[in-house]
Amino acid sequence: MAASRVITLTTDFGHKGPFSAVMKGVILSRLPDARVVDLAHDIPAHWPAEAGFWLQRAHKYFPRGTVHIAVVDPGVGTDRDIIIVATTDYLFLAPDNGLLAPLIESVEGAKVFTVDMARLATLGIHNPSATFHGRDIFAPLAAELASGRITPADVGVPTSQWTPGWLDAPDVRDGHVAGVIVTVDAFGNLISNIDGALLQAFRHPVAHLAGHVFELHTTYGRVEPGQYLALINSFGVLEIARAEGSAAEGLGSERGAPITVAEGLQT
Amino acid sequence: MAASRVITLTTDFGHKGPFSAVMKGVILSRLPDARVVDLAHDIPAHWPAEAGFWLQRAHKYFPRGTVHIAVVDPGVGTDRDIIIVATTDYLFLAPDNGLLAPLIESVEGAKVFTVDMARLATLGIHNPSATFHGRDIFAPLAAELASGRITPADVGVPTSQWTPGWLDAPDVRDGHVAGVIVTVDAFGNLISNIDGALLQAFRHPVAHLAGHVFELHTTYGRVEPGQYLALINSFGVLEIARAEGSAAEGLGSERGAPITVAEGLQT
Amino acid sequence: MAASRVITLTTDFGHKGPFSAVMKGVILSRLPDARVVDLAHDIPAHWPAEAGFWLQRAHKYFPRGTVHIAVVDPGVGTDRDIIIVATTDYLFLAPDNGLLAPLIESVEGAKVFTVDMARLATLGIHNPSATFHGRDIFAPLAAELASGRITPADVGVPTSQWTPGWLDAPDVRDGHVAGVIVTVDAFGNLISNIDGALLQAFRHPVAHLAGHVFELHTTYGRVEPGQYLALINSFGVLEIARAEGSAAEGLGSERGAPITVAEGLQT
Repeated sequence: MAASRVITLTTDFGHKGPFSAVMKGVILSRLPDARVVDLAHDIPAHWPAEAGFWLQRAHKYFPRGTVHIAVVDPGVGTDRDIIIVATTDYLFLAPDNGLLAPLIESVEGAKVFTVDMARLATLGIHNPSATFHGRDIFAPLAAELASGRITPADVGVPTSQWTPGWLDAPDVRDGHVAGVIVTVDAFGNLISNIDGALLQAFRHPVAHLAGHVFELHTTYGRVEPGQYLALINSFGVLEIARAEGSAAEGLGSERGAPITVAEGLQT
Repeated sequence: MAASRVITLTTDFGHKGPFSAVMKGVILSRLPDARVVDLAHDIPAHWPAEAGFWLQRAHKYFPRGTVHIAVVDPGVGTDRDIIIVATTDYLFLAPDNGLLAPLIESVEGAKVFTVDMARLATLGIHNPSATFHGRDIFAPLAAELASGRITPADVGVPTSQWTPGWLDAPDVRDGHVAGVIVTVDAFGNLISNIDGALLQAFRHPVAHLAGHVFELHTTYGRVEPGQYLALINSFGVLEIARAEGSAAEGLGSERGAPITVAEGLQT
Repeated sequence: MAASRVITLTTDFGHKGPFSAVMKGVILSRLPDARVVDLAHDIPAHWPAEAGFWLQRAHKYFPRGTVHIAVVDPGVGTDRDIIIVATTDYLFLAPDNGLLAPLIESVEGAKVFTVDMARLATLGIHNPSATFHGRDIFAPLAAELASGRITPADVGVPTSQWTPGWLDAPDVRDGHVAGVIVTVDAFGNLISNIDGALLQAFRHPVAHLAGHVFELHTTYGRVEPGQYLALINSFGVLEIARAEGSAAEGLGSERGAPITVAEGLQT
């Protein structure tokens, strides 16, 4: 894999304090021409599922060779492992807490490595704090990987064991698809884990959420302002939206809400 | 125009999720040494007026050749056009929804082009999603323009028609100037669309807002903490502020509030 | 000091509007290959103490030669000075309002210079606005310093006078250490100004805050979810946390709360 020198950060640090900044400082200290992109820092504290969802859906928009770091890490400083996932075009670093499971399971040929802390010492990565591995392990390791100076096999041991993901895959049976709202964007759009491909089995699919039924449209501007709609969004998953408004507020729904797809009546 | 390789992003995406990040990923994929700067992501959802105001006032602080992208786009996926505006030193990309009208009308010699989607296909920009043209059209097009590989005329058709702006210019008559609060900054300063030049017609101008009268000062520290003042701010427009406090909170005023300037009594 | 071309920004601008963006535009205009990192923009408006705390604790994670800018500046446009602080490896720019005092006093050999505005004019830095020196003075001056084209002595006058800091150093006496909560992170962790080294005088130190006593642990995962703990955090200071929860919310404590360390009972 060519070195892109691009590194992305996905964390639950919020936009407070110098936490993501010092990760960038550490990266630039080892790789002065690194390009660090903040992917998302608003992941709910201690809920890796949303980080895994966004990485699975967003990683391919970055240059080949990008190293994606995810730090949602309630087990920091305990004996949880750190894993590296290598796909044909990208590398991923995260605690082994289920965060990367959806990605591993959706990308054919993904290889998983458990980081060997002893080998990191040879790179000058050692004596980490017990509470900020993002700065002390993930950032310098990502810089080394993004520089092309090392490969995952240099610092990790191949494994076929990893912690399973936090969310069940959508349940498909009896003419229904049942999933869950994974995240809500700044517009109040309710974004589910139901891939658009799952709707191809229906002649006239409709979405059910919070006791309401939503017709599918191609985009927000296809209904009047204030009206609700369902759509397959730009990341390929089912979303409930309100034109020029907030579906989350209007429906009183949020992350975790169940959502189903069923055959609708062709009117 | 020299290629600066600098691109700015102004959106209503907020600071949630990977939406601006994937735009950067797409840009870096086409232009690995691009410098992408987040100009503002807190534009009110679906209100292009504030984006246009900030671009008009802030764009000139960037290197010559900077490409400024603005994506506040309630009509995404419908038949609204995308326009490129070229001034002597900068390029701007936005939906044709009035966002760039204040800029076009305030910069002498600004040229406007309607993007020809068919020509974008020759650049490998095609099959966009119906809901995220920021990622699928604006980002790759900006990368091509910022690289110097193409010019606006290569992908656009010159036009003298564009959607008018969302805000009236300040009304100047009968010894009054009447404008509006366009935005509120993080300090609670109330920022209007009244250019400082309009106050030169007054001997002793004072500002009226929310039933109060405000004297003009040069800077916040010229009044006691807690006191209110009017000033011409660093972007050249009239602002109502409270020293070491929030004028917005103290006055209960916000975006959209009417503000006028009149001759005050010289005391 | 080698030119790193890295510049960090610490401000109270929040994440609204184009204020930090135009600083980056000015920097890139003078130093096209600058790497600008947002260190923190959520410093409480007009409270320089938190900015000084974070710079003191975080600056060393950046490459040698980094120029750290801090703009928390209620006195902008009045006759307050601007200072440059030079340590062996870093430069710092801030208003002379006490912000940098903790850093100056904690780094041996730190040199302080008062910026001579007349000399800035020779660099084309002049006619600043009365209200945004971050854009008009700090940004271009940092670009010149980060480029290696000038040194602090070229634009400043050595001084041994600077405005004292906003916070007293922790009070150590009678078997107690008394400090204060300086900031709260996005997890609700309460971060104090008590350096971990001050706890070495105790056999079994415990922390007192808001009427509660907290045992020290090495990391969050060492107690059950929902339980409170004290720890020396990754920046070397005493912190009160709640495993997988918010200590700030749970205890009703915030910035400014007194915190003490005393000898605990060995149970």
